[in-house]
Amino acid sequence: MKKVALIMGSASDFTALKPCIKTLKDFGVDLDVTVCSAHRTPDKAADFAKSAVKNGYGVIIAAAGKAAHLAGILAAHTVLPVIGIPMKSSTLDGLDSLLSTVQMPSGVPVATVAVDGAENAALLAIQILALSDEKLCEKLLAHKKKLAEKVAAADADVQLQIKDI
Amino acid sequence: MKKVALIMGSASDFTALKPCIKTLKDFGVDLDVTVCSAHRTPDKAADFAKSAVKNGYGVIIAAAGKAAHLAGILAAHTVLPVIGIPMKSSTLDGLDSLLSTVQMPSGVPVATVAVDGAENAALLAIQILALSDEKLCEKLLAHKKKLAEKVAAADADVQLQIKDI
Amino acid sequence: MKKVALIMGSASDFTALKPCIKTLKDFGVDLDVTVCSAHRTPDKAADFAKSAVKNGYGVIIAAAGKAAHLAGILAAHTVLPVIGIPMKSSTLDGLDSLLSTVQMPSGVPVATVAVDGAENAALLAIQILALSDEKLCEKLLAHKKKLAEKVAAADADVQLQIKDI
Amino acid sequence: MKKVALIMGSASDFTALKPCIKTLKDFGVDLDVTVCSAHRTPDKAADFAKSAVKNGYGVIIAAAGKAAHLAGILAAHTVLPVIGIPMKSSTLDGLDSLLSTVQMPSGVPVATVAVDGAENAALLAIQILALSDEKLCEKLLAHKKKLAEKVAAADADVQLQIKDI
Amino acid sequence: MKKVALIMGSASDFTALKPCIKTLKDFGVDLDVTVCSAHRTPDKAADFAKSAVKNGYGVIIAAAGKAAHLAGILAAHTVLPVIGIPMKSSTLDGLDSLLSTVQMPSGVPVATVAVDGAENAALLAIQILALSDEKLCEKLLAHKKKLAEKVAAADADVQLQIKDI
Amino acid sequence: MKKVALIMGSASDFTALKPCIKTLKDFGVDLDVTVCSAHRTPDKAADFAKSAVKNGYGVIIAAAGKAAHLAGILAAHTVLPVIGIPMKSSTLDGLDSLLSTVQMPSGVPVATVAVDGAENAALLAIQILALSDEKLCEKLLAHKKKLAEKVAAADADVQLQIKDI
Amino acid sequence: MKKVALIMGSASDFTALKPCIKTLKDFGVDLDVTVCSAHRTPDKAADFAKSAVKNGYGVIIAAAGKAAHLAGILAAHTVLPVIGIPMKSSTLDGLDSLLSTVQMPSGVPVATVAVDGAENAALLAIQILALSDEKLCEKLLAHKKKLAEKVAAADADVQLQIKDI
Amino acid sequence: MKKVALIMGSASDFTALKPCIKTLKDFGVDLDVTVCSAHRTPDKAADFAKSAVKNGYGVIIAAAGKAAHLAGILAAHTVLPVIGIPMKSSTLDGLDSLLSTVQMPSGVPVATVAVDGAENAALLAIQILALSDEKLCEKLLAHKKKLAEKVAAADADVQLQIKDI
Repeated sequence: MKKVALIMGSASDFTALKPCIKTLKDFGVDLDVTVCSAHRTPDKAADFAKSAVKNGYGVIIAAAGKAAHLAGILAAHTVLPVIGIPMKSSTLDGLDSLLSTVQMPSGVPVATVAVDGAENAALLAIQILALSDEKLCEKLLAHKKKLAEKVAAADADVQLQIKDI
Repeated sequence: MKKVALIMGSASDFTALKPCIKTLKDFGVDLDVTVCSAHRTPDKAADFAKSAVKNGYGVIIAAAGKAAHLAGILAAHTVLPVIGIPMKSSTLDGLDSLLSTVQMPSGVPVATVAVDGAENAALLAIQILALSDEKLCEKLLAHKKKLAEKVAAADADVQLQIKDI
Repeated sequence: MKKVALIMGSASDFTALKPCIKTLKDFGVDLDVTVCSAHRTPDKAADFAKSAVKNGYGVIIAAAGKAAHLAGILAAHTVLPVIGIPMKSSTLDGLDSLLSTVQMPSGVPVATVAVDGAENAALLAIQILALSDEKLCEKLLAHKKKLAEKVAAADADVQLQIKDI
Repeated sequence: MKKVALIMGSASDFTALKPCIKTLKDFGVDLDVTVCSAHRTPDKAADFAKSAVKNGYGVIIAAAGKAAHLAGILAAHTVLPVIGIPMKSSTLDGLDSLLSTVQMPSGVPVATVAVDGAENAALLAIQILALSDEKLCEKLLAHKKKLAEKVAAADADVQLQIKDI
Repeated sequence: MKKVALIMGSASDFTALKPCIKTLKDFGVDLDVTVCSAHRTPDKAADFAKSAVKNGYGVIIAAAGKAAHLAGILAAHTVLPVIGIPMKSSTLDGLDSLLSTVQMPSGVPVATVAVDGAENAALLAIQILALSDEKLCEKLLAHKKKLAEKVAAADADVQLQIKDI
Repeated sequence: MKKVALIMGSASDFTALKPCIKTLKDFGVDLDVTVCSAHRTPDKAADFAKSAVKNGYGVIIAAAGKAAHLAGILAAHTVLPVIGIPMKSSTLDGLDSLLSTVQMPSGVPVATVAVDGAENAALLAIQILALSDEKLCEKLLAHKKKLAEKVAAADADVQLQIKDI
Repeated sequence: MKKVALIMGSASDFTALKPCIKTLKDFGVDLDVTVCSAHRTPDKAADFAKSAVKNGYGVIIAAAGKAAHLAGILAAHTVLPVIGIPMKSSTLDGLDSLLSTVQMPSGVPVATVAVDGAENAALLAIQILALSDEKLCEKLLAHKKKLAEKVAAADADVQLQIKDI
Repeated sequence: MKKVALIMGSASDFTALKPCIKTLKDFGVDLDVTVCSAHRTPDKAADFAKSAVKNGYGVIIAAAGKAAHLAGILAAHTVLPVIGIPMKSSTLDGLDSLLSTVQMPSGVPVATVAVDGAENAALLAIQILALSDEKLCEKLLAHKKKLAEKVAAADADVQLQIKDI
């Protein structure tokens, strides 16, 4: 199975990105995590993307905030699908990150998930890899069931709490 | 090769979605186009998504505007990657469509492209399918080259025009 | 009298929704609360809406955040009035929830209240039921009086505080 | 059957509101249309709302743009459900109208539909009246079917057009 | 000298409005403070505005949040200048209050100050009254000087702190 | 009676400002119109404001777009009430002009009207001058009546048109 | 004197950028114009920036729309001042371009001008070069005077037009 | 070497501006810091800008929040490059400051950095001065290297932490 690369524009987003890492590990997907900035280490970013196919990656996830150029720049250098996670920063509530990530010009797409959507970026990567991996597909189906079971459990819990209102 | 499904929430978006259809055809990807609304034909949408794997689809592209629920609803019923195209409508300049498409809750991702990003949705679908299709991958590399050549041609053209200013 | 259904997309909104539950209870309206997600339990949501008339509901209230599809999906499956409460989440300050809930396409309305407008959703449901329930109508008129009395009390309180400035 | 009142803040919105009027007429709902401004004829607005129950109305629809206070002011004076249509004006793309209509304080709800959502306001009013009118309910079910049929027809049309791309 | 009326839509804004009250008191302007809601006590609001001239008011200041209709409704009932203070509430960061206050239709203006701009509302009222009150005008000139002196003092303070960086 | 000054940041807004000029003329208010930019003729702007009292002005209206600093700069140099009209420009739909005009810091208010609110700026100026001018006050009351009559006329007109729907 | 480079992300912005080119030519500044995309020709963009100092450039102006990464990417590869012009595109009214250009992370600034601010980008470049070029500085002072003269001429023109209102 | 002036509209921004002061000091650039408001000390601001060239400044940095007019007003009075830092205030999350700073009309540019972008304003000033100062240029190149080294260090750190997830 191809590997997933998670590129973080800044190590300060590490905590917010843990659900991404954990989800990929839980599904047994090979993962490399790299701190690499579009603006502070642009050559490293370009090189990473250029050699990503050769290095066995199937999907690249890029997480960045503010003027979030990382996903777009990686996508410029590879034909692999690039997933962008817009990270909320201290101003403008994530709108800047979202628009900078998603509004890519024709020719170079970035598959954008929600602001701070770390877990969903992982799941999207897994869905992509699962297209040619039957086992991963089954795990996704099991995960979908578990989502529904959690809702059912939450519902049962709410039924108890509601009596006290 | 797996097929791509393009689901349009409204036939009024057909013209804006032609670049999506054309790009997929140009790359030789099998494509089915369906008009199917999350709100007006919800069962059809659910059924389509539920049987998408069985029916040979590898990627679903969903295009919708305003309170754009289509991509999210399809994603709720399948483990296939779902690409969302937020379509600009007559009010709010596409911001409603974008936020309705991209801000999915944890557990059910939608791979969102730019507002009216029809062509990029196609390219993203192709990138996903190309992971297990060497030929498609080569076509993507060729397409990337062509993008650069077009920029070079535009540059040459601009050099001529600049003299008249 | 017909019942009201409050559907929560996520149990994490329970606290914010208590004023909705309390208000309905205070007015003596029969209420069922259910946790049910448009994305994690889409079939349950569809089934709930489809059988809502038969099950004695008169109004459905749906509360969801981010790409808040819940109200719209329920409305797709029923001709009952559906009230949507856009819940503020950790990013974008509720704007995503609001636009995802209110901007419904022609044919399938959602009666949207303010972001986090739990109490008003209850009052709107009561106003709807009161159209064919004289007693409920009287309670609403009494409630309207009480609102004015609270303002008068607050005014009296302010007159005292103002002297210290 | 109770009547519906459509209150327009400005006659300039008449064309945009025709789908509201037409839909109510098509469903056979008794309708009065009034031009009445929260700011230019505030007493008329207050009087209308105060006597709306007595005058046989079951639902009030209020359409206004910019600082759209009309729906809120009507709601202040009645316990009838008030539906607000935020009308897009020449600046700010309808965001001002939407927020002014939907963000009502606790105690006085307005059932807000999409920006320029004239048809949906009518449908919502009909859904409310249909709670105690079996025939209207059947018409709504028939209308829902027609929505789905239109989607199917549009789909058939798209299948033809797609071949030329 | 004519009096100033400060109308608060909700007593919960009292703390945020203290600078308004204090400024008017400091300038020796006669002030009445009233809690009065456009939605919860609409008749009281209308009556207040209708009799404001007769009651000796020269300027009305209205402070409200969310769908802030208070200033507009007061302006509908009087030809006195009405100053609107948009109060920030728990969602949407004051944008709803601002747009609801400022975007008044032609014919009925509201003089809007900044979100939470309590002190400036007082100063604006004083500027208006000072047009026919020489003493008030002199106080405003003195206040303007004091503003500049405070900046100079802050500057001196910064010069000291800067050495430690 | 004191004069009103209308300062336009750019002559390109002349057409949009005609309703301001016409309204002031209709009310018989003395008016001077000046093109004067905060950025291109800053000294002229400062001088105008500094000598405005001496030159017989009672109110200054300032109209500017984009980073609309004009009203704020004039207010910095005078204790006269300054009314700001945020003019919509070719980008950002007037939001930049509105925020630049209204969000003044404590100490220096600008009485802001709606985006492109030319007529309302005039009316607000008239309301301010009318505080010490009985005749102007009567004209405002007459104008208020005329507003209501226009609504009534529009209502009559709508009653005719409604039959054809 | 050092040269200015104007990099256009897309030739479709050529018309909107003419004022930039014309202004630089009018001031006699040496200028090279290049079409070069951060996403379609990323290596060309990187190479351009890396060799910009060596090639005699003093300032780089980068114009791009939507997810406007161009200015940021160029700034990543050079220590020259990079001026970003956010170009308005067909959706979101330029807000995406503005935020993508201006919200750069600490360490790599982009000097951002207004949306579509082509002329101002040129003037800013000239101001920077003028720091070590006395003649250019004088031209800027002359230009500033001309700005004021144009305002005076517009004012004279308005005085004539105003009589007809 | 020419000096840099940092003008703060309000001393309350001092803490947020420390990275600007520290960066300029670290690079050995001569710096004067002044508290000076466009609205509270407009003449001081104008005088500062008018005499800035004569007083040996090469770049002016202006930091202001809300209706942030400071940078624009300084730019109106000088041909020096003016860098604007939009400061986030208590409402609207910095959007008001950003638009008020960046959306300057043609003829008078402000080089705007990110909301609260204190450090980048310093770096941009240094980049501008470095055009005619070889040593400063070398320091910038060294700083760029250090940025990359910090990313590498952060990356190494993340590799350790990742094992615990």
